[in-house]
Amino acid sequence: MSEPIAFLGNLDAEEEADFLAALSAALPEETIRPFRRLSAAERAGIRIAIVANPDPAEVALLPNLAWIQSLWAGVERLVRDLGQNGVPIVRLIDPELARTMAEAVLAWTYYLQRDMPAYRRQQEAGTWRQLAYRPPSEVTVGLLGLGALGSAAAERLTGAGFRVAAWSRSPKEVPPGVTGFSGSEGLADLLAASDIAVCLLPLTGETRGLLDAGRLAGMKPGAALINFGRGPIVATDALIAALDAGQLSHAVLDVFEVEPLPPESPLWRHPGVTVLPHISGPTTPASAAAVVAGNLRAYRASGRIPAAVDVIRGY
Amino acid sequence: MSEPIAFLGNLDAEEEADFLAALSAALPEETIRPFRRLSAAERAGIRIAIVANPDPAEVALLPNLAWIQSLWAGVERLVRDLGQNGVPIVRLIDPELARTMAEAVLAWTYYLQRDMPAYRRQQEAGTWRQLAYRPPSEVTVGLLGLGALGSAAAERLTGAGFRVAAWSRSPKEVPPGVTGFSGSEGLADLLAASDIAVCLLPLTGETRGLLDAGRLAGMKPGAALINFGRGPIVATDALIAALDAGQLSHAVLDVFEVEPLPPESPLWRHPGVTVLPHISGPTTPASAAAVVAGNLRAYRASGRIPAAVDVIRGY
Repeated sequence: MSEPIAFLGNLDAEEEADFLAALSAALPEETIRPFRRLSAAERAGIRIAIVANPDPAEVALLPNLAWIQSLWAGVERLVRDLGQNGVPIVRLIDPELARTMAEAVLAWTYYLQRDMPAYRRQQEAGTWRQLAYRPPSEVTVGLLGLGALGSAAAERLTGAGFRVAAWSRSPKEVPPGVTGFSGSEGLADLLAASDIAVCLLPLTGETRGLLDAGRLAGMKPGAALINFGRGPIVATDALIAALDAGQLSHAVLDVFEVEPLPPESPLWRHPGVTVLPHISGPTTPASAAAVVAGNLRAYRASGRIPAAVDVIRGY
Repeated sequence: MSEPIAFLGNLDAEEEADFLAALSAALPEETIRPFRRLSAAERAGIRIAIVANPDPAEVALLPNLAWIQSLWAGVERLVRDLGQNGVPIVRLIDPELARTMAEAVLAWTYYLQRDMPAYRRQQEAGTWRQLAYRPPSEVTVGLLGLGALGSAAAERLTGAGFRVAAWSRSPKEVPPGVTGFSGSEGLADLLAASDIAVCLLPLTGETRGLLDAGRLAGMKPGAALINFGRGPIVATDALIAALDAGQLSHAVLDVFEVEPLPPESPLWRHPGVTVLPHISGPTTPASAAAVVAGNLRAYRASGRIPAAVDVIRGY
């Protein structure tokens, strides 16, 4: 019988119950216990923690951790709070997340290509007018980020007939039919060529504020932006200015500097902004639990910690 | 040198110019002339008319027509106005139309599956709330109509992972992965099983008013309806009642009993209705001209009139 596994997070009661039930179902041979149910003596024996936005002070009360499994793909907060203590952090690489995120990229690309925001405004105004149709073969979608999510999105978009370009920090092999860009100049080229730019980047020291006023000014006039990565990658004030100036036609934002988006944010009421409550890539408890179970069983069998986040690089 | 071809339609000047330019480019060997430019003597020599919502009185002034080529796929008005005079009517079967229509079916299916109308309402209310995600594998899309458009839509939907059912008047071979229904009882079964029902039917004596109060009451509670077929197939008052009662969650309507949709229609302002100005399956002048050119050249070479609309059946 292995030692128990600690579960730490700031989920609401229902979410926590859902995740604990899914994890217990996926790992019947393990005992998974919420942090608050562990005695001081039990805490000392904990080797593995499964976490979802944990309180760093609670993590610090587990002195013998071998590794930490995140339930989220985005780990910038974990790295900031816990990266210095040397315990390896394993982020969730969920194939279901890549599928749901690629689906969202295609769905909201169609939303823009088929002019849904404009037809919505026309309906509000009682206007019957057919806008010129742009076939996907004449629409370039530029993906920022070419990891598991970007690659899955590129495949859906090329399959739907869009012209697809993709940018990564360092040169990467690109999927078939995709034009690859890398480095700072490559980013400028991609933004200048894209009718729809889609941010799928993780938040790191390098990506924070990456899409600032200068980068937005370099986008193709009338282009649209989708941010499914992290809020602080896009400079909100500069984005609003670019929309107001007509430099950009629309923004679909699923992530924000502060979440939930505060009531006073002008983004809520901007006619050129679609606000989504961080739903582009939903993680379901069942799919996340299946991935965590795979990682845990591999560790129990081999004693090797799964591939961890590079704390310097940030992802 | 063949006799000229007449062009008749109630397009606005710009649209007419676009279509005439595309037709002349696709058929440089033919002379295509607007009806109003033909003398009485020339009219008597016309064998072929290319039409887009023509004035029947003008068509009657062409006594020696061999056949009529429609620029639209929907020919119910032509059949009603001209079907009795015995001149074969050839409707436009444009592979590009099947592509754009299938794309629209997938785009507005995503619109519903990814809860875009609900998130729009939440944005208007300043509400940040994540709605339960439904994967395509748990969403049944029911297609009404399984001709060229329905088959193309079925292929896109199954490729995107949706459960797909399709109904046709008489039994048909269904595409792989699609559950087929036919006949009146089959329609009831399909509507009861569908989370999203998509109407792609032509308007005929049998389909007019097909989705009446009784049929809408038989839909799965909370289901959504997309009408990309023809307006009079759906009973508008019954649809509004079903939405108001919560029997249906949303309707995406691209076609209406009267188009443009009159300003006084309650559909414009109904929160459960997305109004589109007949844009789901755009015909581009270039793609339509290419199909017309193929039909005309085959006729010139063989003397055989292309497959025409069955005036009794209506499509």
